[in-house]
Amino acid sequence: MFYHVKELQYTAKPSQPDPVYAKKLQEVLGGQFGEISVMMQYLFQGWNCRAEGKYRDMLLDIGTEEIGHVEMLATMIAQLLDGAPVQDQEEAAKDPVIEAVLGGMNPQHAIVNGLGAQPNDSAGYPWNARYTIASGNLLADFRANLNAESQGRLQVCRLYEMTTDPGVRDMLSFLIARDTMHQNQWMAAIEEIEQTQGSIVPSNFNQEYEKQDVSYSFMNFSEGEDSSNGSWANGPTLDGQATFQYVQHPQPMGQKPTLQPGPASLHGTNP
Amino acid sequence: MFYHVKELQYTAKPSQPDPVYAKKLQEVLGGQFGEISVMMQYLFQGWNCRAEGKYRDMLLDIGTEEIGHVEMLATMIAQLLDGAPVQDQEEAAKDPVIEAVLGGMNPQHAIVNGLGAQPNDSAGYPWNARYTIASGNLLADFRANLNAESQGRLQVCRLYEMTTDPGVRDMLSFLIARDTMHQNQWMAAIEEIEQTQGSIVPSNFNQEYEKQDVSYSFMNFSEGEDSSNGSWANGPTLDGQATFQYVQHPQPMGQKPTLQPGPASLHGTNP
Amino acid sequence: MFYHVKELQYTAKPSQPDPVYAKKLQEVLGGQFGEISVMMQYLFQGWNCRAEGKYRDMLLDIGTEEIGHVEMLATMIAQLLDGAPVQDQEEAAKDPVIEAVLGGMNPQHAIVNGLGAQPNDSAGYPWNARYTIASGNLLADFRANLNAESQGRLQVCRLYEMTTDPGVRDMLSFLIARDTMHQNQWMAAIEEIEQTQGSIVPSNFNQEYEKQDVSYSFMNFSEGEDSSNGSWANGPTLDGQATFQYVQHPQPMGQKPTLQPGPASLHGTNP
Amino acid sequence: MFYHVKELQYTAKPSQPDPVYAKKLQEVLGGQFGEISVMMQYLFQGWNCRAEGKYRDMLLDIGTEEIGHVEMLATMIAQLLDGAPVQDQEEAAKDPVIEAVLGGMNPQHAIVNGLGAQPNDSAGYPWNARYTIASGNLLADFRANLNAESQGRLQVCRLYEMTTDPGVRDMLSFLIARDTMHQNQWMAAIEEIEQTQGSIVPSNFNQEYEKQDVSYSFMNFSEGEDSSNGSWANGPTLDGQATFQYVQHPQPMGQKPTLQPGPASLHGTNP
Amino acid sequence: MFYHVKELQYTAKPSQPDPVYAKKLQEVLGGQFGEISVMMQYLFQGWNCRAEGKYRDMLLDIGTEEIGHVEMLATMIAQLLDGAPVQDQEEAAKDPVIEAVLGGMNPQHAIVNGLGAQPNDSAGYPWNARYTIASGNLLADFRANLNAESQGRLQVCRLYEMTTDPGVRDMLSFLIARDTMHQNQWMAAIEEIEQTQGSIVPSNFNQEYEKQDVSYSFMNFSEGEDSSNGSWANGPTLDGQATFQYVQHPQPMGQKPTLQPGPASLHGTNP
Amino acid sequence: MFYHVKELQYTAKPSQPDPVYAKKLQEVLGGQFGEISVMMQYLFQGWNCRAEGKYRDMLLDIGTEEIGHVEMLATMIAQLLDGAPVQDQEEAAKDPVIEAVLGGMNPQHAIVNGLGAQPNDSAGYPWNARYTIASGNLLADFRANLNAESQGRLQVCRLYEMTTDPGVRDMLSFLIARDTMHQNQWMAAIEEIEQTQGSIVPSNFNQEYEKQDVSYSFMNFSEGEDSSNGSWANGPTLDGQATFQYVQHPQPMGQKPTLQPGPASLHGTNP
Ligand SMILES: [Ca+2]
Ligand SMILES: [Ca+2]
Ligand SMILES: [Ca+2]
Ligand SMILES: [Ca+2]
Ligand SMILES: [Ca+2]
Ligand SMILES: [Ca+2]
Repeated sequence: MFYHVKELQYTAKPSQPDPVYAKKLQEVLGGQFGEISVMMQYLFQGWNCRAEGKYRDMLLDIGTEEIGHVEMLATMIAQLLDGAPVQDQEEAAKDPVIEAVLGGMNPQHAIVNGLGAQPNDSAGYPWNARYTIASGNLLADFRANLNAESQGRLQVCRLYEMTTDPGVRDMLSFLIARDTMHQNQWMAAIEEIEQTQGSIVPSNFNQEYEKQDVSYSFMNFSEGEDSSNGSWANGPTLDGQATFQYVQHPQPMGQKPTLQPGPASLHGTNP
Repeated sequence: MFYHVKELQYTAKPSQPDPVYAKKLQEVLGGQFGEISVMMQYLFQGWNCRAEGKYRDMLLDIGTEEIGHVEMLATMIAQLLDGAPVQDQEEAAKDPVIEAVLGGMNPQHAIVNGLGAQPNDSAGYPWNARYTIASGNLLADFRANLNAESQGRLQVCRLYEMTTDPGVRDMLSFLIARDTMHQNQWMAAIEEIEQTQGSIVPSNFNQEYEKQDVSYSFMNFSEGEDSSNGSWANGPTLDGQATFQYVQHPQPMGQKPTLQPGPASLHGTNP
Repeated sequence: MFYHVKELQYTAKPSQPDPVYAKKLQEVLGGQFGEISVMMQYLFQGWNCRAEGKYRDMLLDIGTEEIGHVEMLATMIAQLLDGAPVQDQEEAAKDPVIEAVLGGMNPQHAIVNGLGAQPNDSAGYPWNARYTIASGNLLADFRANLNAESQGRLQVCRLYEMTTDPGVRDMLSFLIARDTMHQNQWMAAIEEIEQTQGSIVPSNFNQEYEKQDVSYSFMNFSEGEDSSNGSWANGPTLDGQATFQYVQHPQPMGQKPTLQPGPASLHGTNP
Repeated sequence: MFYHVKELQYTAKPSQPDPVYAKKLQEVLGGQFGEISVMMQYLFQGWNCRAEGKYRDMLLDIGTEEIGHVEMLATMIAQLLDGAPVQDQEEAAKDPVIEAVLGGMNPQHAIVNGLGAQPNDSAGYPWNARYTIASGNLLADFRANLNAESQGRLQVCRLYEMTTDPGVRDMLSFLIARDTMHQNQWMAAIEEIEQTQGSIVPSNFNQEYEKQDVSYSFMNFSEGEDSSNGSWANGPTLDGQATFQYVQHPQPMGQKPTLQPGPASLHGTNP
Repeated sequence: MFYHVKELQYTAKPSQPDPVYAKKLQEVLGGQFGEISVMMQYLFQGWNCRAEGKYRDMLLDIGTEEIGHVEMLATMIAQLLDGAPVQDQEEAAKDPVIEAVLGGMNPQHAIVNGLGAQPNDSAGYPWNARYTIASGNLLADFRANLNAESQGRLQVCRLYEMTTDPGVRDMLSFLIARDTMHQNQWMAAIEEIEQTQGSIVPSNFNQEYEKQDVSYSFMNFSEGEDSSNGSWANGPTLDGQATFQYVQHPQPMGQKPTLQPGPASLHGTNP
Repeated sequence: MFYHVKELQYTAKPSQPDPVYAKKLQEVLGGQFGEISVMMQYLFQGWNCRAEGKYRDMLLDIGTEEIGHVEMLATMIAQLLDGAPVQDQEEAAKDPVIEAVLGGMNPQHAIVNGLGAQPNDSAGYPWNARYTIASGNLLADFRANLNAESQGRLQVCRLYEMTTDPGVRDMLSFLIARDTMHQNQWMAAIEEIEQTQGSIVPSNFNQEYEKQDVSYSFMNFSEGEDSSNGSWANGPTLDGQATFQYVQHPQPMGQKPTLQPGPASLHGTNP
């Protein structure tokens, strides 16, 4: 169960309105790696968690924090939309700067949301639940989380460079710092699990059942062998079980497929 | 530019048809972590790659291999659908086993695809491009790739357990082995980049611009302190810069937000 | 079965082209509360209607009218796109007004539709059938309809303010008037049903089976008690059954959840 | 900012596993009118609220409660999935009851989520943000909310009838009661606003600008006049401004449209 | 503007309920090639039509007919759902036939639609507007229409084979006949346009601007030359301009791409 | 199985960057009729092909070529994005040309992709698998393919007209030529199949089972009889079986539908 306090986790006040930037900032609110994604991902991982209690607690801690990040971004976007030129289009057409703002802002911010934030990304595409990763395997999911915080911090840093508004930058500097923490957090959690279980997900699938002669081979399917110079093609494998092999000319190992004719009742094309 | 050979990378032949299993197997063909996802992800990362040549070459090697995995799964699914009970429903209704097959298979496999594979997941939801991650930052993207191979191997292992068909299991044992390789590959590539650039994405954002007093704090937003026992709450941080802090009672640092009235022309509700 | 006459229900002629406005106007054609939504919603409610005949007739009346509104908007949009600057981009780049038009219009209007309307919203997102509400319970659905006409009239009024074109405004004044009627219509229909069935949907679920001690309590989950001053927190409830209670400090009534370990064959993380 | 306590708002414990019912229950978690929808809708309405403080406070109260409902349903679904027959399919094929469970459950619950809940509906379709309504006009949005609670309670009542599990029914009885409250709450809030602003959304659009001769006319577009017997076709209109008119034979008032030829550079078909 | 009559274009009465078949039949109502698709496609092509009047009239004729087909299918589905076993699940679990029906039907038909049709396909995926093709070029669009009627008739024929219900088959026999007509219609319209404009879309793009040395070459990109035996690899081309060439070993004609480093402010990975 | 060579099938080098055009060009990469669509469509048709070998070989030839077209477009888009004004927004605001570029480009190209191509269309909407047509009936599918190449060539020609960049035009001239070939190819393949099987899909459904009295009737559902002047309303039908009939006043042939009351447990509205 949840409680809310009115104060934001950190200040979210732009120095001045900027409706075009409001559109861009939607990316880290409702995009694939926006705050809604991590909020939902951590909460569902927590609620579905069948592992020991500290993982569930930790997931609900961070998931709850992320609801507050969604709140900060929504609040910021609503304020960036203040004063957007939503009227007098005829006048606007005479002023290329205003016209450019009208062209560059998301029309739904005015028509649909009345100058409010929306749970969409910067292309206006709605957030959807296929972004949420919760597999029940914590090593897999913590890797998903480390990726989410990496893509997320990258996007926030890009957005930081795209504005000079001190108020916006101040809020983003907070989110960037939290993403630094969260990358560290997931790296620590991953290391902790890898040390006891090994690094291949899932660790408890009997490796005898896999086709082991291709388990450590890098296959060169594109012309040119620059790829042979990587750490993925030489030396010990990261799971500590073998040595990387470089297969210069990978050959097919399977059949040339032919399918049987289909049943007459499906009216497909048969030989 | 690409070339095709008719033989599959590895044998894809079920021992007998199983239309209900065909529906399930769609997950690793057209699901979020299916073969279409990694195919598109590695190819787009390769085509967009602005880094040194070995990364581009490596990405196109593995992206090209993945097209062949899509092919193997599509071929397998088409064969699993052979002999599906698509007619004589009245007869079927009398035989609960056949009726259960009819209920459990995906009706589109017959109506739409004429017993062919489709680029959808096991719920019949179409693959879509928001699954594709290509940010231009290789450390971020390699973490996405490691996650994809972890979720992917997990799903294939689960599917392995859900069948006893030796032909299906043989093909899955190949895919599982390749996912072992690919997890190793991305771990190696990640380690290589982290050693020169550090482990926080993006590494070249000036950390002075982030709000550093919260960069290493774990915040306990949910009642109960089990989370304080994790490696993410104590000891040195994984980026080697600091020590984790545990914040037992996190407090808001921001304002209690109030928004200005909106313009009359938008007809929203003002105070 | 349906028939068509060539004349529009009301005149749809812009005074001059405006491709940027054409993009915005798509919202009330193919958006969540656009004309396609109400058309589909009323028709499906009518076709699925199991209630007495006057409801089915009324739903098909208004559903049929809405097809004509879709037609008016599509016609208007095609004309607003006349003369869009789709060529000579190099020239355009020199004229910031033309460049702004190019930036502000939806590129698909030219590339995909050849200056025709499309069944999408103002962000270019396609209309989809999850917008259609048809539950089989008329009180629930008429509330959906009242909401649709409220959101719809709000959006059309906003669009009215965003243009000064007399031809566009004339058509919008017609649509706004019809939305006035349709809000009145659904309010009347709701009142009619509420008077015989009561106001809680569904009315024929035995209220003894609900946990009645929380059926009339407003719970204060966010810090601050401004919400106690609303009509939802004091006085008689609208269903005439009770008095609103204000719960100042809501407490959990449920268990602290713990889940059982999962089966080994799913390779999740267990304690 | 938000805090979490470990106990659920109300008990969520099934008396026994039921993976087929788990699939159905997803509807009120991640469907159009599931708990995620109302959670997001109330929170975004609250964060975007430009009206007086009691509305914002009330919206955040109820939005925060709804996060707890999402939590209860996720917890219930994870437990309903316990013991799902995810292995030994060959054995299962011999037992039609187990086969039917396998056919009737959502395969992603096992393959993707490892027996955890997912933010999707009962057809496996992901929740998406186009379900979220936040227009900035509170009368419009409260009507959306009343509809959401009406559709929601209807669906939960239907699900109540589809099970006899006492534990599931106990939890649903709580959710049904809260939906009773929330319908009452939105009716009260609507009445409060209508009394000061009138009942047509938006109330502050100058009605002189609408085409008033069709503002109160019911138009009979479908053959048969049963619809003339409704309260929407006779007597005073609900906004208190006029009397309903019944138009027996509605005639077109607009032009027969013809479009100009398109530009040669778009290669469309011209006359 | 449109009018409605209460009678269906053709009888839609099943001989008995069949909720599992109702789910399948949704494909030709709300699937990619269902009746909603052709309804929307023909209407939008008609409303956007800038060509001579007979095309617009014809498109609106057939588009209006298709609304009536949507109506027939919705009516049929609602009746197929009559008597679905939506209660007493405990009882059902004892009867494998009923259990199979519960597993095989779409749960939303009961929970969301109260035994009504929905605008979705047989996998429960919502119809969406990206299915609608209206390019402004009639030859292109008539080919889209011919395809739609071909896929549509194929699916209806498959569904005809999947039932033995005389009432359902009677209605499908009508839809199949109309699809026969509509395939003939689009073939006739295509031939008419090709005779005056030629057969390559768009016909009025100056062919000198295309790279004509590859305009008539079949390229053998997959190992094996069975494809050289087709009419697409030998003899005169269908546009009457040339002779097909078979390129046995197609070679790249382009550069080995390398991209420039990106700007520092985007924090991508550069060499 | 597939192999890759580093050289592109044809040169893809813009003469100068143009981020606004990059957004537009996405349409033919990731739009409904972009290269990803034909790539996936031809490959899935090939892998699912149950007909004689030359069809499978041909489909895999062209499907493999299309992967190379995706590569060319992705490469071109990445280069068009070079030098996009992604920083110094304050400066940009003073220069309307730069501001227009910022407004007209897709913000995700910078924020999400770091100046790389994405598998989306020109509205930023992701490619999805519902675009892929693979029915198992080759005549139906080849018509889908002819349509795809017609819409595709039309869009590329439109994009050709929207730029004057010689490098971009050079690449487009290659793609246009290949689309000329591919339209010829599918026309040839269609003719080949029609000659042996007839022209109505599916050809092997017994026409006696269709309601033959409406198999060749054009029905005039919209007022005005311009449509009677088309080749679809007079003369022999294209399948060679009959003569087109023009039905001036089409009448309903079906019942006036009424539905039974629903079960009490679903709480719908009954009479
Ligand atoms: Ca290589
Ligand atoms: Ca905690
Ligand atoms: Ca409060
Ligand atoms: Ca009527
Ligand atoms: Ca070949
Ligand atoms: Ca006509």
